[in-house]
Parts: sequence; structure tokens; C-alpha cells
Amino acid sequence: MRIIDEQAIENIALGAAVLGTGGGGDPYIGMLMARKAIRDHGPIELYTLDELNDDDLIVPAAMMGAPTVMVEKMPNGDDIVNAFQVIGKYLNKPIRAVMSIEAGGLNSVVPIYVAARLRLPMVDCDGMGRAFPEIQMVTHTIYGISSTPFSMADERGNIVIMETINNRWTETFARSIAVNMGAMAMIACYPATVEQLKEASVQGTLSFAERIGQTIRRARVQEDDPVKTVREAVGGFEVFKGKIGDVARRTEAGFAKGEATLQGIDEYAGQTLTLNFQNEHLAVRIDGEYRVTVPDLIALLDIDTGEPITTEAMRYGYRVTVIAIPCADKWRTPKGLELAGPRYFGYDVEYVPVEQRYGR
Amino acid sequence: MRIIDEQAIENIALGAAVLGTGGGGDPYIGMLMARKAIRDHGPIELYTLDELNDDDLIVPAAMMGAPTVMVEKMPNGDDIVNAFQVIGKYLNKPIRAVMSIEAGGLNSVVPIYVAARLRLPMVDCDGMGRAFPEIQMVTHTIYGISSTPFSMADERGNIVIMETINNRWTETFARSIAVNMGAMAMIACYPATVEQLKEASVQGTLSFAERIGQTIRRARVQEDDPVKTVREAVGGFEVFKGKIGDVARRTEAGFAKGEATLQGIDEYAGQTLTLNFQNEHLAVRIDGEYRVTVPDLIALLDIDTGEPITTEAMRYGYRVTVIAIPCADKWRTPKGLELAGPRYFGYDVEYVPVEQRYGR
Repeated sequence: MRIIDEQAIENIALGAAVLGTGGGGDPYIGMLMARKAIRDHGPIELYTLDELNDDDLIVPAAMMGAPTVMVEKMPNGDDIVNAFQVIGKYLNKPIRAVMSIEAGGLNSVVPIYVAARLRLPMVDCDGMGRAFPEIQMVTHTIYGISSTPFSMADERGNIVIMETINNRWTETFARSIAVNMGAMAMIACYPATVEQLKEASVQGTLSFAERIGQTIRRARVQEDDPVKTVREAVGGFEVFKGKIGDVARRTEAGFAKGEATLQGIDEYAGQTLTLNFQNEHLAVRIDGEYRVTVPDLIALLDIDTGEPITTEAMRYGYRVTVIAIPCADKWRTPKGLELAGPRYFGYDVEYVPVEQRYGR
Repeated sequence: MRIIDEQAIENIALGAAVLGTGGGGDPYIGMLMARKAIRDHGPIELYTLDELNDDDLIVPAAMMGAPTVMVEKMPNGDDIVNAFQVIGKYLNKPIRAVMSIEAGGLNSVVPIYVAARLRLPMVDCDGMGRAFPEIQMVTHTIYGISSTPFSMADERGNIVIMETINNRWTETFARSIAVNMGAMAMIACYPATVEQLKEASVQGTLSFAERIGQTIRRARVQEDDPVKTVREAVGGFEVFKGKIGDVARRTEAGFAKGEATLQGIDEYAGQTLTLNFQNEHLAVRIDGEYRVTVPDLIALLDIDTGEPITTEAMRYGYRVTVIAIPCADKWRTPKGLELAGPRYFGYDVEYVPVEQRYGR
């Protein structure tokens, strides 16, 4: 067990935004929210799964919706506490700890807010080791864990709870409700025991995010080439350097979808990169050829500072390095690829692990 | 207390279809479903509110969605039992009896199915004395009773429960989920005590529907003018006689919406009636002038048999008598008219009670 304090939160939010692969929410809003909770209620305890009992019940808390809306609408906090508590009430069981469902600037720290408000510990694992746009896209699904009871809450005080026959149906219902709630909702879902999570979760994601965040903050001030330092810290590969050109976005069915075009600079001069996203970055083509796809991670780092740029923060003229990071092994299984591989998202291409293409 | 048997069900389904004012579901499907339940599980008991204890908990069960879909998709029965039982489980209270939320060929008898399957009594009251298309449009809302906990179930086994800050939000969420579930869902909602219902419900609706159904069945074989007999039984007024011409329908946002045009016959020859509907008939114009609007009831009766014709059964060439029936007094209060008067549905006209226009 160790203590998560204000300093740790800033690092986690920043580092998780790299793992958030363009999505997972804005790290600044996440950081503000969690910092306030820790100031008001005190620091929180972070446990590894091994430090808990096998039958302890763990519930993830998160925000869902289009990140384009999230940047304009700060969650009020009571909504996420509502969503979380209703699961314990519905199951009529005590919840031992909270966890992140995904890595991301916001969704890595939303659980910290819940932990601080409710004086509950947090567990150092998540359901992705990255961020994905749809509810069923978690390692829990690969291991047969139900997303339900699944709860949603909005800032007005409305609550929706569902029990579904599979996690795809949860996505369908939850997406409609999130749209009704204003394209954004607070959720609690995938209740599971520690024993289940030892098999089904991606462990150590929060600590990993924290180390990445520390590296970025140090690199900003100390390094000649901050991007290289960050890239090495995440075990990633350089894919491209370029200037952001057109960004076409639309908020559609509760998602921020779109495509960005980058013109190469330096050794990539003359090349064009096309980036597709749906909340998260999904696929990179260079001069029309697929180079990186889900489930591997795609991150855009500011070329001068090494800081991650989320999909909604992409603007014309930004100079970025595009890096690719190997995903958690669970995503490379047949079930993992069926759930969140390139073909699920409509890209007619085989998944090639990033380290096969870019070598070590 | 009295017993509802197979014969009673046929009368109720038929009579309730008149009060269903074009909506509330197909009486034939409702009758089949409830008859099977009574054959399998025995007849059910119908109570008046006065025969129950004031603190007894009563929960309505119903089907919601576009009637155009309902006629093609027979509910499997387990879904409505699921939706109903989850309310008792969620509230952790025993449910004393089931009731109809609205009058309609289907929704007056869906609760009979639940009562038979679960061996529960039914109460002789409803929340409208007619049918309305939206969830918040019940007399419960006029008296401040919450629609939630509100549950929904589909034939696959999915369940959604909600707690909302007002009944309009329930409509918003439930409509989206109903669309996701296939434009049709089984619901249980508006849990209330007998004491609350004595004030807030429309009493005797089921018995009234049964008497209307008996009248129609007798009129079919015995009367020269079955429409007149039925019209007198429901206390209605003749508004028009005509032949159905164009019917424009669309299934939109989970509703069956549209407009029908009728060409006058007999003493109405040369006149044109325009009928607007959204699941239920909402407004009648004759030669462009509003003649009948919500919340009063509009029914189309087959000119030869006196049988009611639902919105989805309207076909080119049918010869019908259009009758108007005064709504329950609760709908004529300021709150009632705000909830379901002509302006709510977008008709720029004052509500005029039908008996003021057509006299007694």
C-alpha cells in the first residue's frame, strides 16, 4: 500500500493522458477534480491486488461520453458518487475499493476523486492499460466478466441502472442514455472480485502512468529532446514527426469521431499521415499505408515539451511526434482482437504488433 | 372483489381499445396473451381500491413503444414478468397488486397477464382513463407521484432501471432504451400506495372497458346501428362519418406518428377530416378547423360493426364513424392540460371540452 497525494495526482493525470491514446479525458480537468477531493478529504491509499482479499468487491468508476463535451462541462462530483454508491446498494454488498476502468487523463483520476470522497482505497489496475471508446472494450470482457450491474448518473440527479445479457448491449443502452444526459455521464460498472481481477485486469497501470508523468515533468525542464525521453519511458516507437493540418471532427452518437492529416517534417518531409479517431486514436496511415492500428496505442506528443495531446486538443499548426506503444498482451489474443482490433472499427487490415513493424 | 375470467378478458381488451383512442396496443394480441396466462394459471381477482389497505403497494405493468412494431412482435411474457418483479426487488418491498397504467387493447390486459402468472390480484383503476403516448402523461404526475423506480425489460433478458428527478426525464431515457430494445419494451413504473391512488388514479377503468366490450359484442349481432349503441355506452358524441383516404405514417423516435385524411359520407359528404396521431389520436380538424383535441378521446369505429380501429389498423377505404368522448376530469385541470393538452403536442389552439362543442 502507498499513499496518493496531490503531487502523485498531477503525474498520474499527465502520464495517463499518454496511455489514453488521445482519449480518456482531459488531464487538466481530471487533475483539478481529484486535487480538490484530496484537499477536502485527505490523501488516498493505493493497493496492489495482492494486498487485498480474494473475495473483496472492486468497482470501477469513470466518465463516459464525447470528450468534446467533457472539456466544456466539468463534472460536479456528486454525480460520480451517486453512480458508484448505487452499485453497492443494488448488489447489497460492501464495496472494498475503487479502480480505473481505463487509462486516461480524466478516467485515471475520477476513481481517485471517488476514493477521497468516500474514504475508500484504490487498486492499482485497470481494464485496458489504455483507453477505448466503447463500454465492452475491457479486458474484463475477454475473461467473461459482466459489465452489469452498470450505473449511470448525471449532474441533475438522474440515475439509470442496467443488467444486460452481454457487454455489447450495455454499450448500446449506455450510449443512448449518455446522449440523453448531455453527451456525458458518470458511470460505475464491471463489479468484480479481487480474485477475478488478478486474472482479468491490467495490473500496475496507475503506477506506470505516474512514472510517465514524472518523466514528462522532468523532461520539460531538463532534456534537449523531451519526446525521446518520454518515448523511452513508455517503451514506444517513433512513427512520424509532423505538423497538424486539417482536423475534421463530428460529435456523432455520443462519440467524438474524426480524421486528422499531418504533414511530415524533418526526415518525414514530403510524407502525409492520416489519423482516425473515435474518442481515442484508432489508426495511423502514412501515405495511405496502415502503419499502426488498435489495439496498439497511438500518442501525439508536443515536439517541444513531450506532453500528450488529446484528440479534442489537436489544432492546426501543432508540431508533434507520433509514437506507437505496444498494448497489453491480453489485447493480442484472438478474443482481444475480436473485441477491439482494427476490423471491429471497420479497417480492412490485419493487426500487426507495433514492435514487429518498428523492431526493437 | 370479483373474478376476471376468459370471457371478461375479451370484453376488456375490446372495450379498452375504444378508450385507447387509437393507441394502447392491439386488442387481439393483448387478448391472446392474457387468455393464455389465465388458461395456464387460473382466473384472477379484481379489487377496487377501497377493498385494499391504504399502505398496500401497487405497481402498473405495461408495454411501451411504437404500436406499428407491437403488431409484428408478440411479447414473450417473461419480459413483462422481469420488468415487474425487478421493481419489488429494487424497493425491497412486497407488491400487493398490479394495475394498468392506461386503457388500451394491449395495456389494459398486460397487467392481467402479470396477475395470472404471479398469482397477484389486480386493481380496477388506471393512470389515464384513456391512452397517451408519453410516460409522464398520467394522472399520477398531476398528483406529484414519481414514475420511478421505473423498469424496462426486453425479450432477450436485458433490464434497465431508472430513478429520475422528474417524469419527463423518465420519458426521455425510456424512449431511447425502447428504441434500442427494438422500438418496444415491457415496463413497470409509478409504484404507489392505495392511499395515493385513491387521490391520483382514474378509478373503475377496467370495469368500464368491460362494459364497453360487452356492448360492442352484443351490438355486432343484435343492432341495426352498432356504432350508435357503442357511442351511447361510452358517453360519446358523433363527430364525423367518412372513408379513410391517405394515411401517412412514420416510426420516429420510437413513436408511430402520422396523419390520416377522411372524406365525409352521408350528412358529412363534401367535408374533409384530418386526424393527427402519435401512437394515439391527438386532434381532429374538419375542413381545417379544430373540432376535438387531447385530452378528450377520439375513437374511430367501424361503421358496420362498431369495433374500434387502432392507428396502426387504419387502411384506405375503411368506412368509419369518428366519435369524441369526454376525458377524465383530472385532465381538465391546469396541470392536466399542461401535461397533455393540445399545446403540449404543438397544436396552437385552446382546449374546448367536447361536450361544450357538441352539447348534450
